Amino acid sequence: MDIRPSERASDYQKRLEIFMDEFVYPAEAVSEEQMKASGDLFHHPAVVEDLKTEARRQGLWNLFLPESDLGAGLTNVEYAPLAEIMGRSAHLAPEATNCNAPDTGNIEVLARFGTPEQKEKWLRPLLDGEIASAFAMTEPAVASSDATNIELSMARDGDEYVLNGRKWWASNAMHPMCKILIVMGKTDPTGPKHRQQSMMLVPIDTPGVTLVRSLPTFGYMDREGHAEILFENTRVPATNIISGEGDGFLISQARLGPGRIHHCMRSIGMAERALDLMIDRAQSRTTFGQPLALRSNIQDWIAESRIDLEMARLLTMKAAWLMDTVGNKGARVEIAAIKVAAPSIAARIIDRAIQVFGAAGMSNDTPLAEMYVHQRHLRIADGPDEVHKRTIAAAELRRRNPDFALTPR
Amino acid sequence: MDIRPSERASDYQKRLEIFMDEFVYPAEAVSEEQMKASGDLFHHPAVVEDLKTEARRQGLWNLFLPESDLGAGLTNVEYAPLAEIMGRSAHLAPEATNCNAPDTGNIEVLARFGTPEQKEKWLRPLLDGEIASAFAMTEPAVASSDATNIELSMARDGDEYVLNGRKWWASNAMHPMCKILIVMGKTDPTGPKHRQQSMMLVPIDTPGVTLVRSLPTFGYMDREGHAEILFENTRVPATNIISGEGDGFLISQARLGPGRIHHCMRSIGMAERALDLMIDRAQSRTTFGQPLALRSNIQDWIAESRIDLEMARLLTMKAAWLMDTVGNKGARVEIAAIKVAAPSIAARIIDRAIQVFGAAGMSNDTPLAEMYVHQRHLRIADGPDEVHKRTIAAAELRRRNPDFALTPR
Amino acid sequence: MDIRPSERASDYQKRLEIFMDEFVYPAEAVSEEQMKASGDLFHHPAVVEDLKTEARRQGLWNLFLPESDLGAGLTNVEYAPLAEIMGRSAHLAPEATNCNAPDTGNIEVLARFGTPEQKEKWLRPLLDGEIASAFAMTEPAVASSDATNIELSMARDGDEYVLNGRKWWASNAMHPMCKILIVMGKTDPTGPKHRQQSMMLVPIDTPGVTLVRSLPTFGYMDREGHAEILFENTRVPATNIISGEGDGFLISQARLGPGRIHHCMRSIGMAERALDLMIDRAQSRTTFGQPLALRSNIQDWIAESRIDLEMARLLTMKAAWLMDTVGNKGARVEIAAIKVAAPSIAARIIDRAIQVFGAAGMSNDTPLAEMYVHQRHLRIADGPDEVHKRTIAAAELRRRNPDFALTPR
Amino acid sequence: MDIRPSERASDYQKRLEIFMDEFVYPAEAVSEEQMKASGDLFHHPAVVEDLKTEARRQGLWNLFLPESDLGAGLTNVEYAPLAEIMGRSAHLAPEATNCNAPDTGNIEVLARFGTPEQKEKWLRPLLDGEIASAFAMTEPAVASSDATNIELSMARDGDEYVLNGRKWWASNAMHPMCKILIVMGKTDPTGPKHRQQSMMLVPIDTPGVTLVRSLPTFGYMDREGHAEILFENTRVPATNIISGEGDGFLISQARLGPGRIHHCMRSIGMAERALDLMIDRAQSRTTFGQPLALRSNIQDWIAESRIDLEMARLLTMKAAWLMDTVGNKGARVEIAAIKVAAPSIAARIIDRAIQVFGAAGMSNDTPLAEMYVHQRHLRIADGPDEVHKRTIAAAELRRRNPDFALTPR
Repeated sequence: MDIRPSERASDYQKRLEIFMDEFVYPAEAVSEEQMKASGDLFHHPAVVEDLKTEARRQGLWNLFLPESDLGAGLTNVEYAPLAEIMGRSAHLAPEATNCNAPDTGNIEVLARFGTPEQKEKWLRPLLDGEIASAFAMTEPAVASSDATNIELSMARDGDEYVLNGRKWWASNAMHPMCKILIVMGKTDPTGPKHRQQSMMLVPIDTPGVTLVRSLPTFGYMDREGHAEILFENTRVPATNIISGEGDGFLISQARLGPGRIHHCMRSIGMAERALDLMIDRAQSRTTFGQPLALRSNIQDWIAESRIDLEMARLLTMKAAWLMDTVGNKGARVEIAAIKVAAPSIAARIIDRAIQVFGAAGMSNDTPLAEMYVHQRHLRIADGPDEVHKRTIAAAELRRRNPDFALTPR
Repeated sequence: MDIRPSERASDYQKRLEIFMDEFVYPAEAVSEEQMKASGDLFHHPAVVEDLKTEARRQGLWNLFLPESDLGAGLTNVEYAPLAEIMGRSAHLAPEATNCNAPDTGNIEVLARFGTPEQKEKWLRPLLDGEIASAFAMTEPAVASSDATNIELSMARDGDEYVLNGRKWWASNAMHPMCKILIVMGKTDPTGPKHRQQSMMLVPIDTPGVTLVRSLPTFGYMDREGHAEILFENTRVPATNIISGEGDGFLISQARLGPGRIHHCMRSIGMAERALDLMIDRAQSRTTFGQPLALRSNIQDWIAESRIDLEMARLLTMKAAWLMDTVGNKGARVEIAAIKVAAPSIAARIIDRAIQVFGAAGMSNDTPLAEMYVHQRHLRIADGPDEVHKRTIAAAELRRRNPDFALTPR
Repeated sequence: MDIRPSERASDYQKRLEIFMDEFVYPAEAVSEEQMKASGDLFHHPAVVEDLKTEARRQGLWNLFLPESDLGAGLTNVEYAPLAEIMGRSAHLAPEATNCNAPDTGNIEVLARFGTPEQKEKWLRPLLDGEIASAFAMTEPAVASSDATNIELSMARDGDEYVLNGRKWWASNAMHPMCKILIVMGKTDPTGPKHRQQSMMLVPIDTPGVTLVRSLPTFGYMDREGHAEILFENTRVPATNIISGEGDGFLISQARLGPGRIHHCMRSIGMAERALDLMIDRAQSRTTFGQPLALRSNIQDWIAESRIDLEMARLLTMKAAWLMDTVGNKGARVEIAAIKVAAPSIAARIIDRAIQVFGAAGMSNDTPLAEMYVHQRHLRIADGPDEVHKRTIAAAELRRRNPDFALTPR
Repeated sequence: MDIRPSERASDYQKRLEIFMDEFVYPAEAVSEEQMKASGDLFHHPAVVEDLKTEARRQGLWNLFLPESDLGAGLTNVEYAPLAEIMGRSAHLAPEATNCNAPDTGNIEVLARFGTPEQKEKWLRPLLDGEIASAFAMTEPAVASSDATNIELSMARDGDEYVLNGRKWWASNAMHPMCKILIVMGKTDPTGPKHRQQSMMLVPIDTPGVTLVRSLPTFGYMDREGHAEILFENTRVPATNIISGEGDGFLISQARLGPGRIHHCMRSIGMAERALDLMIDRAQSRTTFGQPLALRSNIQDWIAESRIDLEMARLLTMKAAWLMDTVGNKGARVEIAAIKVAAPSIAARIIDRAIQVFGAAGMSNDTPLAEMYVHQRHLRIADGPDEVHKRTIAAAELRRRNPDFALTPR
């Protein structure tokens, strides 16, 4: 057993940390000012482009793509601590390094399943950070955690598909640079349950695509947006289909694994930042005659945070290691496990930090309030906890009884 | 033992529920539109004034003031279920009935401790809903949960007091109708620990009063505002002191008891609304072949919510009953107890409701997201949980050992 | 609203507390010694009979039977605080006052459904404390929480019923004074689901009744025993049936309500005793230079215990009050609610007390270890939490949708 | 990163699993029968000696001793999964393989600090499984989690030390083969706080040593015993001191690290067995028309158990890896972390398994009840959770502020 980072990983970590200190953290205030000055909720602050230029110059670019010559070629294990570091400043660092969701997932889909034409047109500019993209899967009318519920219609009409339906929570769609949507829908509503779905490339300026609104998350309106999108007789060339008719469900499964674990890595980074803030505050704040840090309930919170955080990190690393060694599918249960564990653990730690800060913790004077909401959000995004637990339980039940089936037949 | 509501209370409940159905719930959308149309985060929507007129016409006005001929003359026990009903639409109902914090607390302070002149000038218009008020106690620089930490200086200078210091989280101060601040500060920084503080009436337009900004709670910027206020050489007549020099700590203790329990009552109303929403959603939403309502984990959530909610309501009622029968001071431990219990229980219920709603629960399409944040906020507002637990623990330790002292001497 | 005890209830409480102080607590050590001296795990210590004589002399006898002239004639609300007081010494006080389970439940069944002959033969001596009884419902082979699963066969054969089957967890059956079993079984295995069951009086010395063994609860072998009983061609006269064929399910539902709430009342008493022990220990024990009572984590535990205990007591009282005013059936949801809440809350409090005691808390030097195990036991006895939650959830779902059915049809 | 077991470790795992299947599990019933037949609570069943002979023959002996030629020479990382496997049958497997506490810890102490004479006399027979030993540290009169509280007096008198004091929870002291006690006491009560203590070898048959009684743990009287021991003018040769005067505190710290992690490893094994039992029962038991395994609340329990168990195992492994690579002292925080996490996680999993088993789960028909109590016990044994959290918190606070001190000076 050896859990030390590889030399390459250590080097990237050191360089990324320097980049964070020198460029990212100082840009936080700049970005906020540029947002405020613009008067536009969905403004793209210029400082982000500066960060991108600098990150690319330093070779801190497209770090997330394992087993590929399109990015840095790091393994998931090597990338995990980098994503964690990025998570400490999650509004800037992932985008600065071209490692932000959902572009990462969309890049993976195109790299794996795209035709040469699709790659040239959409993958290349995505890898270069020239455009942004969104992924339109969730629908307001059905429980989309069960992907077979999805209803958006993709009807073949000659050389085109005609799309009709409504999506929401398409993150990044309000980004001024967002040019392309990957849309999941049904090409064959009467086919076998997991072969009805297809994935389609839909340029965002296609007639019949309407960005209805952006949805706030617990009061926060993220600048990249979580869009509700209406598709009304939206026509795209038949060549815009990804892989083929009926491959949608499969691609969606493949797509979400890495995305989920990236979220977890960043969650751990956020929790570490929260823990640091909590500890510092506890040492500087005095009530009833002594600093909070000397109170044993606060000490318990700090200790429990460290314990949980350490366990969450190790499970994330194990899932990453399995992805590297036995593949995303072989790591399915571990990915589900950490997808459940990490946001809850991070939320609990941030919650304690808020309590130590008192009133200040609820405002936007610290990053805690927004981080708290973000972790709550992750218990639903990319599948609610309950769906992932169901996956894990099924695997466990089958471990003891290979004939077990979730639904009685 | 009899826990049925009095006839008078039943009558008020019925009338209030009709008022909610006929006027308040329909006004929710109107209010949102008027806010949006104004383009002003701190706009006072006209519909609120309409509601106030109607509520007053119906005798649903100033319901909160026990043992007094200034309001409806209800007991705390009678008021509790009314506050609960108001809590179901907490942005409108309390203000519509002139029962909103912090005006309620300020009214109590003036009614109990005000001079005839102070009453004429500030209490009367507050009771008539003509003006609003704020309470400025918390300070950014010190842990204000320990009220003796408070630092704002109130120096006597001839016939005036000169105020210098910084407050924040002064709720209601951004309200366009807010005319008066009740400010806590120190008139005698070297006096005995609990006699250093005084309360002062400070008209909001006094020179030297600067509303620096309003603080968001998580992502929400409440229209009434939580203001940071700077006092720089702010001069008020010496007659603006409430009760007398050194009475500040005492008044603050008296003031916060009823305010805390009102919050709890409303929390229970919010939780009931969340539970209704959760149940309805569970019956209408289907995953993996069956409605959520048939899943036993969702059933457990519903049951646990009902159990906890019932217990929280009973403890609230007991605290109210003690306030009525042995006074606010005699109910001190029970008020602390429910102040800790109710927000946590409500938050847990709302959290489950959000999970049942999935992505929809995090947006503003339901009231859940904002209610969730509000309950989290209440674990800090009016004293963090830890301070109230300390109060309870001290009482318990003294119950078994009258000589017990929290701080070793 | 008025939650003060009635004068009669106050009087009983005072008298019972004096009886506890003068007779019960001092008998705890005596009883243990008599048990040890006997060398018999199921010995009936003589001191218990002394306590019974004294209690009866003082009019502290059969306090549990509401709406009846057979006992003290107290309401459930009046009885609740008495059961709580008894719970502080649960091995002795309930039996001393002839208020111990399962005799109480069996007495209720006979009082309500017994024929005059059955009453004369079994009810009278039970009321007089001359004999003890057991209730045989749970079976090892099926999940008995779903009472329709029960399989013991009761076949009519002329003037007799012939019983075949196996029961376990029949509490009290090892008691040397136990003379009669009330047994639940199936007289009509093909009838409508809830009419297949009947209740039968089976004298314990009937041929074909074998007490196989007594089951320990965790490491404790209670002296009254939790028996596994084998019925092999056990014949009883047909007149031993209670009420009539097919009434078994109904009677079992009626029987369990009061029994459940009595458990909850006693749980609260145990938790109060644990809290007292915890507080006293915290004041007398020093670590790292200060008494535990000054540590804020211990203070939090004390406060949280008080909060939870207060809520559990109020919910118990409300359920009792509903039983008195709208009947056991009308109180069904509240009984289920407190059956879930009380043991968990009590266990949590006892668990904290154990932690404050350290190693001493796990031994039998304090009553904590056994109380802890007893509360864990109650999360299963008389129906596991999950079944009661299901009841509550169904009621809530029907509250919003009267057509809701737990099982899809 | 690589978390695969070494080839040597895999080999040991396979061989140990075969040994468990062929010898240990079948011996469980035999051992119980031999215990029952003996009529002696502290009987040493013959089957254990058979197991020891067989284990030694198979080279499954003294597996626990890292960096030493006295045992198998495995690292902590290699030993961890073996201890986990042993934990599945914790009454037999550790003793069978000569890996049971407290002998393991005592062996380490002697191996590291013993004189050649001490080694010859006590270490050799311990390594050969010819004798057993106990460790007497905890005292009833003081909070022994703060080791500086310990009071047993060790007064030098010529060539001897004279011991006076009372110990309890000396595990293994009732074992018929227990010959030697390692006793912690004070040789210099006025010296510097952490230099007052010494460790002494005291043969159990020394005059003045009285085994007062064995303490039960939640009703269970373990056959090896947890003894209360009285030392009255107990004289031992001065050469029986371990290392030297004042080294007691240091040795105790060194001793407890590995012991704690061995407990955690076994806890994980127990939790795995509980999870297997829970899953199997859920598939075979039906309520309300469907097997428990199809209920989503049971599925959630299974999933949460797997998630937590996986995290606990990884943290255990990390602590073991640190012990191997940076030493026990460098792994101090991680050992404290897993000492807190593992018993809580294991207890939660076992608790769920009990609930799935219903009444059967509380009896001794499954190993669950005893395992549950054992895990509760571990939250206190070798230091209560709160002391370990304090260690972790201090490290965290110092990480951000090297000047932080737990106690204000």
